[in-house]
Amino acid sequence: MQRPVAIAVHGGAGNLARYSGTGRLEEAHKFLDEGIRSWHTMLRDGCSALDVASVCVRALEDVGYFHAGKGSSPNDKGYVELDASIMRASDHAAGSVAAVRSPKNPIDVARYVMEHTSQVLMVGAEADVLIRDAGIPVVDFSYFVPCDEVGAALPSTGTVGAVVLDQHGEIVAATSTGGTLRKRAGRVGDAPIIGAGTYARARLGGVSCTGIGEYFLRTSAASRVLARVELLGEHISTAAGTILTEIVNLGGSGGMIAVDHRGTVAMPFSTSGMYRASIDGSGNVVVGCL
Amino acid sequence: MQRPVAIAVHGGAGNLARYSGTGRLEEAHKFLDEGIRSWHTMLRDGCSALDVASVCVRALEDVGYFHAGKGSSPNDKGYVELDASIMRASDHAAGSVAAVRSPKNPIDVARYVMEHTSQVLMVGAEADVLIRDAGIPVVDFSYFVPCDEVGAALPSTGTVGAVVLDQHGEIVAATSTGGTLRKRAGRVGDAPIIGAGTYARARLGGVSCTGIGEYFLRTSAASRVLARVELLGEHISTAAGTILTEIVNLGGSGGMIAVDHRGTVAMPFSTSGMYRASIDGSGNVVVGCL
Repeated sequence: MQRPVAIAVHGGAGNLARYSGTGRLEEAHKFLDEGIRSWHTMLRDGCSALDVASVCVRALEDVGYFHAGKGSSPNDKGYVELDASIMRASDHAAGSVAAVRSPKNPIDVARYVMEHTSQVLMVGAEADVLIRDAGIPVVDFSYFVPCDEVGAALPSTGTVGAVVLDQHGEIVAATSTGGTLRKRAGRVGDAPIIGAGTYARARLGGVSCTGIGEYFLRTSAASRVLARVELLGEHISTAAGTILTEIVNLGGSGGMIAVDHRGTVAMPFSTSGMYRASIDGSGNVVVGCL
Repeated sequence: MQRPVAIAVHGGAGNLARYSGTGRLEEAHKFLDEGIRSWHTMLRDGCSALDVASVCVRALEDVGYFHAGKGSSPNDKGYVELDASIMRASDHAAGSVAAVRSPKNPIDVARYVMEHTSQVLMVGAEADVLIRDAGIPVVDFSYFVPCDEVGAALPSTGTVGAVVLDQHGEIVAATSTGGTLRKRAGRVGDAPIIGAGTYARARLGGVSCTGIGEYFLRTSAASRVLARVELLGEHISTAAGTILTEIVNLGGSGGMIAVDHRGTVAMPFSTSGMYRASIDGSGNVVVGCL
């Protein structure tokens, strides 16, 4: 019997109800629906969780519908700052980058840090130097088309992410963001922080978060979801819901996607919507915005 | 009956055995022994955990014996980058700063971020702007006297930290570092990361870590120690030891200090030494280097 594969992606949680009737949600829905089927096919064809997670997040960064990659908005000083992270469960390998200005695909930088350096987290101007030296494709400011200010799509806070379980039982979680619109320059949220916005553990699962990052940092959200699965044997849905409730009780909001090692998917959110799509280990497809 | 107060501090874990016979360990021991008694007196006199943790970490930054504040060493590009974080258990309040060059006391910046901004984590050159705008004392490069290259003291990787329980049951954890000697510019370890190097939870405890930061990031060390206390009811010593063992099994090394809500102290380390001092809820004093 073939082992289950599963995938979940998100394009950010926020007040998406305000886009009802504008066509934006339909546009995003179509993208996610086509994407999830194609990424799932890659997994069924034997691609690794690491490659599929990278491909997913790159696509979410490139499409410009979401607040990451191309769709990122300038901060309060008028330039774009990008953050991303990735973690592979089997060997606790992780890479992340924060407050960089140059990469076309921040997730590629996070993966580079994971695979080709002895660091986990690189930040700021020196990380932009690393990007250039590594030959990772860069863009200038004219590349960015803030998704909040054009026709395409969406949320004023937003993040994209993917959690993937492959045929070998490997789990990878990845997250990328352009931060929040007009955020304070130099501010970093949970997206590039291993343990807060992104976490993955062998034989447990993976988590990628979206929302007001400060609350996900303060609750160490992603790692504490998996700690509940590890230590209590809690179902991934219960664990994710419990931590999201804690965030809401602190005054925060957002959502997360989680996949466990059996291919179960949970995608809770506290906002009026979260761009999301998944195909679980039994082949059930979910695509939704509200 | 007065409620217990407790305090633990560290000045970094590393290969301290190599300093045997040089007088360095004795010098650090004297500083820690005098310090812990004075900080404990502050607590007994009613000072808040937040104030005592700040005073401790400032003193550890200022003395120049440890790899934080004055004792910080230049990175591979020849300048100093500083990181710090602080967290208060009762309201999950947290502040941190990474890869800054200017503050005399990075812990003051972390506290400022926590108390006076809506951010949790600020990084890089824009964080140095915040420091200047906030009127936080700054220094230039001539201020730093790398503890590895002068007579004072020590470790080539190092961090300082404090965990404090006050009379009101408040718990604060704080950590500060100058990174590792000749570290890659732009590299950030666990010290400024809430959940990795620093974490505190009401009615559970607080943790501050030291060691090779990448391993503490990948294991989300501080928050997972407290998750074990929360979810398993594990003793703080067992929980801290379990996570440190996980780090060692991944190839990492270091140590941590932890204080629970009853005033129990744990200070495990996997290296040949860790500068440490504590007074637990029963008044037991521990001061040690090896």
